[in-house]
Amino acid sequence: MVTPSSQVRIGIAGLGRMGRRHAENLARSVPGAALVAACSPDAEERAWAERELGVAKTFEDYATMLAAPGIDAIFLVTPTTLHAQQIIDALHAGKHVFSEKPLSLDLDECRRVEAEAARFPDLEVMIGFVRRFDASYCDAHDRIVQGGIGRPFLVRSQTLDKYDPSGFFVRFSATSGGIFLDMSVHDIDCARWLLGNPAPVRTYATGTVAVHEELYQWGDVDNGVAICEFEGGRIAIFCASRTMAHGFEATTEVIGTRGRLTVGGNPRINRVELADGQGVRNACTPTFYERFEDAFLREDRAFVDTIRSSAPSPLRLHDATEATRIGIALRESLSTKRVVEL
Amino acid sequence: MVTPSSQVRIGIAGLGRMGRRHAENLARSVPGAALVAACSPDAEERAWAERELGVAKTFEDYATMLAAPGIDAIFLVTPTTLHAQQIIDALHAGKHVFSEKPLSLDLDECRRVEAEAARFPDLEVMIGFVRRFDASYCDAHDRIVQGGIGRPFLVRSQTLDKYDPSGFFVRFSATSGGIFLDMSVHDIDCARWLLGNPAPVRTYATGTVAVHEELYQWGDVDNGVAICEFEGGRIAIFCASRTMAHGFEATTEVIGTRGRLTVGGNPRINRVELADGQGVRNACTPTFYERFEDAFLREDRAFVDTIRSSAPSPLRLHDATEATRIGIALRESLSTKRVVEL
Amino acid sequence: MVTPSSQVRIGIAGLGRMGRRHAENLARSVPGAALVAACSPDAEERAWAERELGVAKTFEDYATMLAAPGIDAIFLVTPTTLHAQQIIDALHAGKHVFSEKPLSLDLDECRRVEAEAARFPDLEVMIGFVRRFDASYCDAHDRIVQGGIGRPFLVRSQTLDKYDPSGFFVRFSATSGGIFLDMSVHDIDCARWLLGNPAPVRTYATGTVAVHEELYQWGDVDNGVAICEFEGGRIAIFCASRTMAHGFEATTEVIGTRGRLTVGGNPRINRVELADGQGVRNACTPTFYERFEDAFLREDRAFVDTIRSSAPSPLRLHDATEATRIGIALRESLSTKRVVEL
Amino acid sequence: MVTPSSQVRIGIAGLGRMGRRHAENLARSVPGAALVAACSPDAEERAWAERELGVAKTFEDYATMLAAPGIDAIFLVTPTTLHAQQIIDALHAGKHVFSEKPLSLDLDECRRVEAEAARFPDLEVMIGFVRRFDASYCDAHDRIVQGGIGRPFLVRSQTLDKYDPSGFFVRFSATSGGIFLDMSVHDIDCARWLLGNPAPVRTYATGTVAVHEELYQWGDVDNGVAICEFEGGRIAIFCASRTMAHGFEATTEVIGTRGRLTVGGNPRINRVELADGQGVRNACTPTFYERFEDAFLREDRAFVDTIRSSAPSPLRLHDATEATRIGIALRESLSTKRVVEL
Repeated sequence: MVTPSSQVRIGIAGLGRMGRRHAENLARSVPGAALVAACSPDAEERAWAERELGVAKTFEDYATMLAAPGIDAIFLVTPTTLHAQQIIDALHAGKHVFSEKPLSLDLDECRRVEAEAARFPDLEVMIGFVRRFDASYCDAHDRIVQGGIGRPFLVRSQTLDKYDPSGFFVRFSATSGGIFLDMSVHDIDCARWLLGNPAPVRTYATGTVAVHEELYQWGDVDNGVAICEFEGGRIAIFCASRTMAHGFEATTEVIGTRGRLTVGGNPRINRVELADGQGVRNACTPTFYERFEDAFLREDRAFVDTIRSSAPSPLRLHDATEATRIGIALRESLSTKRVVEL
Repeated sequence: MVTPSSQVRIGIAGLGRMGRRHAENLARSVPGAALVAACSPDAEERAWAERELGVAKTFEDYATMLAAPGIDAIFLVTPTTLHAQQIIDALHAGKHVFSEKPLSLDLDECRRVEAEAARFPDLEVMIGFVRRFDASYCDAHDRIVQGGIGRPFLVRSQTLDKYDPSGFFVRFSATSGGIFLDMSVHDIDCARWLLGNPAPVRTYATGTVAVHEELYQWGDVDNGVAICEFEGGRIAIFCASRTMAHGFEATTEVIGTRGRLTVGGNPRINRVELADGQGVRNACTPTFYERFEDAFLREDRAFVDTIRSSAPSPLRLHDATEATRIGIALRESLSTKRVVEL
Repeated sequence: MVTPSSQVRIGIAGLGRMGRRHAENLARSVPGAALVAACSPDAEERAWAERELGVAKTFEDYATMLAAPGIDAIFLVTPTTLHAQQIIDALHAGKHVFSEKPLSLDLDECRRVEAEAARFPDLEVMIGFVRRFDASYCDAHDRIVQGGIGRPFLVRSQTLDKYDPSGFFVRFSATSGGIFLDMSVHDIDCARWLLGNPAPVRTYATGTVAVHEELYQWGDVDNGVAICEFEGGRIAIFCASRTMAHGFEATTEVIGTRGRLTVGGNPRINRVELADGQGVRNACTPTFYERFEDAFLREDRAFVDTIRSSAPSPLRLHDATEATRIGIALRESLSTKRVVEL
Repeated sequence: MVTPSSQVRIGIAGLGRMGRRHAENLARSVPGAALVAACSPDAEERAWAERELGVAKTFEDYATMLAAPGIDAIFLVTPTTLHAQQIIDALHAGKHVFSEKPLSLDLDECRRVEAEAARFPDLEVMIGFVRRFDASYCDAHDRIVQGGIGRPFLVRSQTLDKYDPSGFFVRFSATSGGIFLDMSVHDIDCARWLLGNPAPVRTYATGTVAVHEELYQWGDVDNGVAICEFEGGRIAIFCASRTMAHGFEATTEVIGTRGRLTVGGNPRINRVELADGQGVRNACTPTFYERFEDAFLREDRAFVDTIRSSAPSPLRLHDATEATRIGIALRESLSTKRVVEL
């Protein structure tokens, strides 16, 4: 059992783009963590983990890693479709689990994971809603909790990706769940968090294909907008885009009876401003990673701290279920052009 | 008949808060305009016009002013319910007409005004959508027309009023048409203008009473949000609020395939920033008037210039009808909680 | 004699770039002003005033205009070298006078004007330090007077011109007095005003020729910096540049014991922000005129209001003398590379 | 000898406020570093290092730590007066050295360290000018090197501390070297770095006691300003303040022939903006640490990377000497009220 003074021995599954970053964090920058195992079907990725991060044991196969001794916790940076079963398997193997978002695109599966996790109260399960660990989002949350804007009742939140001429994301449209489940799920989670976790009541969504016409075949869009009403007259508006010219942007406004908070109103990459023939300008965060690099590290540390301290997780598994539930309703509204009651 | 070198002799109807401001503009700061008449049921207001602005003739009654000689154009700053008939009466009396927005809250009335105006092609009728004359909105429009953001397809526009503890506006809820017809009509008009005047297709709206509970009796809200879909996959999102803590704010984002324009992202009142124990901050425009003071003057000048030059008006009467049509649909959606097809 | 209800009949001398703008203001947008006369050696300029502004009488010669009947006040937008004598002549002719800055580049001449003006206490003499009439500078001044930043003790102020490849200004270097007397004189006046008119004690200045090498022959620079110490431990820092890539910028920071005010930290031309491949940016004011267009109008109105109300002028003639005195000291320091005691 | 694959074994001297932070970085977040020893006269600090960071060996005495086996590099976070001799002692003991800035307040001592270091070309000596490792300053430097603003010729740089009612810093005025050597030394180093390391030519400085009257006894000020001229017509302006109301701020503008870069124009602590009755505002970084927390970590990593890779240090020891040389000249100018030639 992990104690506050002991190291959390972690095995990571998935060493793709984000997997590598989590692995680097865990190996180098998370006090109390020891990255002892890594699992990937790709031999080169495994070799990288051994060589660069000094990972002692690597595995081709997830089940084999789960069966190996000396691992306290599993870190899942695998395809979304695998998350639910891999979490359940890890719990059965007695491991704490961190999984990248979303928990699942299937609501029943979300609930099955919740039910299984409830059987293992001593094991931590955390879904990576990274914004909950971002310093700015946390500051906004603190200010709200302290009454800084009175009673919050309206959230406007948007996640905008820089246009990628390669259309990389299109290939994943068939399996990503579409724009709302893939992108807005962060905004949905933030809205719930910042509004005090109200139950959703009703939602409407629409969207358009501005650039990527290949999306028509999947019923998906590259720009989506939605309204979600919650109990108590609370409302959220979401926008998601795959086609922005300037970079990645995550902006969340929370409007309360005595003030408004805005997180990320300008996606500035740093503290430099350039004044030249173009005007006065700042460069922007090209991808979500530059924007949330610190938050990913804080997230990884929070997971390890939670295990070591046996404190309750900063987010509940049910939050992930709710985000998926709302995301599915948005997708349904997009395709039916009708309001969806929840 | 008015010629480029002659003065446009104007009679204004309505000398309330906004009426006085238009009157001052016309009397003092609009080249080519002569404010020769004013009409108000209030003796004190008429005395003010005579004393402060040197208005030669004042009238208690609109019909009497219309019948008086030596007036080329009428300026209506009267209650909304009067606009339509007063415009028609002015046309029949051979006058050009400027009317404050909205044209009418009744769609049939809007169409009746359009039909009458079509019978007087030599007379100008302009509805005061003041943002069309604001330097920043005009700059945004110019940039869009010049292709600066590629093809525009999404507008996010909001009009936010500062919270007024006196609840002044509540008294007008019964007659103002509700939050969307009273406030969002500006955003609706901007969205149409900046998206290239597409036809609306479908809309959904909702809202909440955050503070002013008296609104429940009128079926109105103090914070409203809406999505409006237009032909060609163009979309607009509107927000309106009566309860902001910081001041009046009109923000409009236009998203195109190659860039995004934001007008009014920070409602700064001027170019002063204060750094003190509260952080770094700027004061905000308290009401719409401080924000659009210049635009009101430009609007008044544009009306007079249009008459003198016989050039086509910068906005068509049909634009006002469309704004009302969409506003009515938003109100219906708010009350039915259903999508309204247009 | 001018009374509050009478028109101030104005004759303007000088119809160059700025002269035209003042003339337009006075003819069209200044209540209580009547532009009745204009003087220019250029026949075309005179014809413009007659045709466009309806100016009744035009003159080739300043003395003739002064001698003409029916003129209450003179507006001087003439070359700097003429200001002092023209002001004195106008006073002797019984006219109120507005003169563009600077009063003179010669300190004795400044003092001679002050002495003459003292002999005509009923006549107004105002030098056009336009920033004193700018809404943002006025707001800053009001906040300081009201104690908003405690005791102000440090000003950082800069005037930056957009680089003009034509080198237009270089031609005037011989007669403009150099960068500090031509440009920084505004910052000097602002610093005195915002610091409470302290007496200057000591100054040091330097500069560099970054681009316009023709300036070497005049001992002038295209970028200058200076420190000016005032009594009571108050300090001002000035920068002036002729070579900015982005536009015209006037920024003034005032630092007090309880806060800091910044006027014009970003020379944004309007409320539009553009997000595209260049980042997030705003366009800038290209010249001082776009920045201070409103202030020029307010200045013109203030001059007329002062005459009509017999209220004291918002700025004293001595302020102009002090600005010249400090400017001359900066120029001396620039050439000697030594501190100049005042 | 340290190789790329081996750990750099570090002993830290000084566990005060900044010492603890460097120690935490080295123990937890610097790949390739092992914090194996710590030295402090304070028993509690040593106990903290053992308990919290797992430091194997702690020492009361610097000489004893230097003599201990198994240490590759020394990290000095000790009082300024000790830096020079401690660096020399570490070199003689065969250790690489990192020292917090400034190298020394005495120019001869700076030169003595330079001379000694030249005798040990295989040992790294780095002085902690932390801004050289800040992401924003590095971005600015990169842009300049790539020609983004043409030829840079003017720097305006300021370091402003939040007012501390306890007057904590006053106690150190006698030994800190005064405001320019203590605070502006960062701006001096940045100016040299961003202007391409020009030799200084001439300087003038002044200042004022705005709040802390106890400073008069030390000939120091709580607000200082200075101009420093470099060869080739390059110029820097420095401001330093101990009395700001809003927080810590480090702002550096670099002006070139084709553009201007500004680092840190708004000392925002994060990406949150609050709109309420105070206007629109952001909170500020309270101290230099919140502003440069990431840079301190990058600095620590850079030191370790330099040792492991045997690459040249990103900054030369001579840079520290130059910063002290200019700082001393500024102090002399402040006290003599005369220009100091360098």
